[in-house]
Amino acid sequence: MQIASPDLDLTLRALSSGDIRTAARLITFIERGTTGLTPLLQTLYRNGGRGRIVGITGPPGAGKSSLTNKLISVWRKQGLTVAVLAIDPSSPFTGGAVLGDRLRMMEHACDPGVFIRSMASRGQLGGLAKAAGDALTILNAMPWDIVLIETVGVGQNETDVMRHAEVVLLVQTPMGGDDIQAAKAGITEIGDIFVVNKADHPQADHTVRQLESMVALGNCLHPDRTWLPPVVKTQANSGEGVKVLTNHIDRRFVHLARNPEVAEKQSRERIRHRVGEILQQLLNQRMRSNGGGWLDEAIEPVVARKSDPYALAATLIERL
Amino acid sequence: MQIASPDLDLTLRALSSGDIRTAARLITFIERGTTGLTPLLQTLYRNGGRGRIVGITGPPGAGKSSLTNKLISVWRKQGLTVAVLAIDPSSPFTGGAVLGDRLRMMEHACDPGVFIRSMASRGQLGGLAKAAGDALTILNAMPWDIVLIETVGVGQNETDVMRHAEVVLLVQTPMGGDDIQAAKAGITEIGDIFVVNKADHPQADHTVRQLESMVALGNCLHPDRTWLPPVVKTQANSGEGVKVLTNHIDRRFVHLARNPEVAEKQSRERIRHRVGEILQQLLNQRMRSNGGGWLDEAIEPVVARKSDPYALAATLIERL
Repeated sequence: MQIASPDLDLTLRALSSGDIRTAARLITFIERGTTGLTPLLQTLYRNGGRGRIVGITGPPGAGKSSLTNKLISVWRKQGLTVAVLAIDPSSPFTGGAVLGDRLRMMEHACDPGVFIRSMASRGQLGGLAKAAGDALTILNAMPWDIVLIETVGVGQNETDVMRHAEVVLLVQTPMGGDDIQAAKAGITEIGDIFVVNKADHPQADHTVRQLESMVALGNCLHPDRTWLPPVVKTQANSGEGVKVLTNHIDRRFVHLARNPEVAEKQSRERIRHRVGEILQQLLNQRMRSNGGGWLDEAIEPVVARKSDPYALAATLIERL
Repeated sequence: MQIASPDLDLTLRALSSGDIRTAARLITFIERGTTGLTPLLQTLYRNGGRGRIVGITGPPGAGKSSLTNKLISVWRKQGLTVAVLAIDPSSPFTGGAVLGDRLRMMEHACDPGVFIRSMASRGQLGGLAKAAGDALTILNAMPWDIVLIETVGVGQNETDVMRHAEVVLLVQTPMGGDDIQAAKAGITEIGDIFVVNKADHPQADHTVRQLESMVALGNCLHPDRTWLPPVVKTQANSGEGVKVLTNHIDRRFVHLARNPEVAEKQSRERIRHRVGEILQQLLNQRMRSNGGGWLDEAIEPVVARKSDPYALAATLIERL
């Protein structure tokens, strides 16, 4: 479906005034890979950037959705409005779990200050993170104080989703020493705050100490050397530690405001990644459009095997 | 591991003379994402292109590996040497099935005229098809008459793997009418020959007729309008129909030789896709290298929200 320009203006105004149905409709379009949304997304981007974007990720079963539910409660008590974008990985195996996750947030379903939306992106190669960025552009052009983006941290695609967030919470379940090693090798470099959920678990304190020593030893690979990622213990079911967690999130935003060179570096990094994602999608379209004339002349030496695809690709990347 | 240039020459000669151990070692490097292979791959590409590349794909359980096994037998009787590259999708769920598949080809394990290698590519975002292309570059610089690339046809990644092949066999299991519809929506546009395996199944003839009428009605989306994809019924366990299948493969290669404009169009399409894949990997590296100066100036208007990531990406793609 194409969105005509009179609609564009209407849509823009609807979103600015916080119209949830418009947002939901647009996110459905993004999910379906509807074309013609780019002019709208461009306008929204240029007029957006209102709310804080917080990311929350971690392995399946870490309690991210319960924690999200409790975070919403704390923020609502502070008078803040919250939009949640839950990104479902493109796996048929997680369908049930995701449904259950959404149910955990149902207590906020009737609160007009809360918007909860899950988004799946099946069949779009590498398109999950790009689609998440588009959806965030919509939500961030609305008057939400906080936009929370949640995803299961299992692979590169999910790490890429988290790259859209300004502050990232990495939720861990209590576990043994070797598991921490495995987690370290993964996405710890993008975690601004470590959360050990299920605080009543016998291994909880052990995990907290492991993470703390990892941070202290400089092993967490956090790109901001002026920030030591805190380790927070929570119990999402009871809400224990969640208020403390929101304080740490605030502290991180204050830290970024006081260190504009760090904030700007991170912001540029996010934009660079975003541009790269959109560029990859455009490149994909070119590759799949049965040529359409793209590279027609440039590939002749490769056809003759006087050049090769690696040399041509290297030449092309230098043009960017 | 870096490959130094004296090694490069040795490696080149080893592959030209058909040294299997060198090929196996290099494919392991590709699997692991080893850097520094590009100069070698470039030289191999420019000196390669010897064997025919045949692709075989289809849903899990269609009997692709049994069929491959029997195809090898027929080709070996004709005096042809065969290399098989079996691409494993990056899923932990298929591990067992893949192992079983490989076992089905074990009867050729001691034949020096046959090389069977499986390749997995876990954790490389969109890298499976690129890695397959690299491995094919190695095998195609060796004196194999036929290089067979096999993958499970379940998604975009696997379709992309098949784009490296000159002739693609699409293996189907006997099924009801609705399933054919589902298959149609998928990757039928890349199938040059349709194979209905498990010919003794009660639904086999029904499926053959369905596919034949799909082809006759022009619904198979095959890009070469001078070719009507044949539908071949096989029974991989007994070998029934496999000789007929190899005849159809030969017929397709003869057709391409007689219609050089079609062959060249397809060859250019393969190269274009290949360049795009390598370019995507290079782009990915740029996105992940924490900037490294890439786009430093270009993103300033986006930072100021006077421009947006969509506009910048659109500008960049035009440079390619």
